[in-house]
Amino acid sequence: MNNRLYTFAGGDSGIWRIVKMEAIAGEPIPAAVMVDVIAGQETGQSSREAKWLLRGITSNERYVVHDEREQILAKQPALGRLEAVCAALIPIRKNSAWWNLHQDERQKIFEEQSRHAHIGLQYLPAIARRLHQCRDLGESEPFDFLTWFEFAPADESNFNELVAKLRVSPEWNYVEREIDIRLVREPT
Amino acid sequence: MNNRLYTFAGGDSGIWRIVKMEAIAGEPIPAAVMVDVIAGQETGQSSREAKWLLRGITSNERYVVHDEREQILAKQPALGRLEAVCAALIPIRKNSAWWNLHQDERQKIFEEQSRHAHIGLQYLPAIARRLHQCRDLGESEPFDFLTWFEFAPADESNFNELVAKLRVSPEWNYVEREIDIRLVREPT
Repeated sequence: MNNRLYTFAGGDSGIWRIVKMEAIAGEPIPAAVMVDVIAGQETGQSSREAKWLLRGITSNERYVVHDEREQILAKQPALGRLEAVCAALIPIRKNSAWWNLHQDERQKIFEEQSRHAHIGLQYLPAIARRLHQCRDLGESEPFDFLTWFEFAPADESNFNELVAKLRVSPEWNYVEREIDIRLVREPT
Repeated sequence: MNNRLYTFAGGDSGIWRIVKMEAIAGEPIPAAVMVDVIAGQETGQSSREAKWLLRGITSNERYVVHDEREQILAKQPALGRLEAVCAALIPIRKNSAWWNLHQDERQKIFEEQSRHAHIGLQYLPAIARRLHQCRDLGESEPFDFLTWFEFAPADESNFNELVAKLRVSPEWNYVEREIDIRLVREPT
């Protein structure tokens, strides 16, 4: 059960430098220079001094079905690859119409209409990804999901294609807030 | 988004008196006399003095499909009915085998094998219910779900039948911890 909770602290600390931040839908978040990715309960200096803190928890899969999950597991790379010096943090909130749908209706939009998992599969193993849920951490979380991606500079155009495909899918009709934060890892 | 978070504080305060507490599976929780049901962030005296605090958040449905959800919505009673002076609080933790299943596998066990929603429907509108999720509140929650039930004394045997049916269902093979707490509302 350890290290399911992650905090992304936007401020002046961390190894990831923000190179671009764009509000795709809804309200933007305050500008920041660096992002610190903190595993576990955040108690450090970077979180106390942060301009913003976004928290999420890794959890069980909600929509991906067996066969595609097996393919994803077989192909997905780990985070922290040396060559993957580019990252993206994409916080998303879906609207109440989405959350009021029944499980089978959400499943159908995710799988049959949007083919979300199928689109993602096409970009493995180049793009590493970790999904964090926020909606059930508390009553007043600003986003429902935070997705963190890592990829090599040569795969940036592929990553742009991936997010473009998802943003025109039926599932994205339910997205009411989305921020696209691009980062590069500082040389150590 | 308000009042999705609830805390059940076991101690000496609250309007619900514990009449029986049984560990059905796994470790028991400490004995207490009363339970206080607190909506929102708990900051009051009863939570500071409590023997235990169990927190959960109401969320979207995870498994119930459209048709059954419609039937449940049409038949389910509200909490707080005057005649419903009996209550049950049933905290449950499922094992890692459950959480490692794919969504479609969990769905199948819930729906086709266990007929969880179908069993519950048979006891509406007598038994009111509110499901709280805990698993994604943090990394170290002791339970995955807290379910709160309210019913009239005349429906207690029906309630016992309902939980007995669920406990022999395939879904319950994945339950590794379950406490059954029965309560009565103090006269005001």
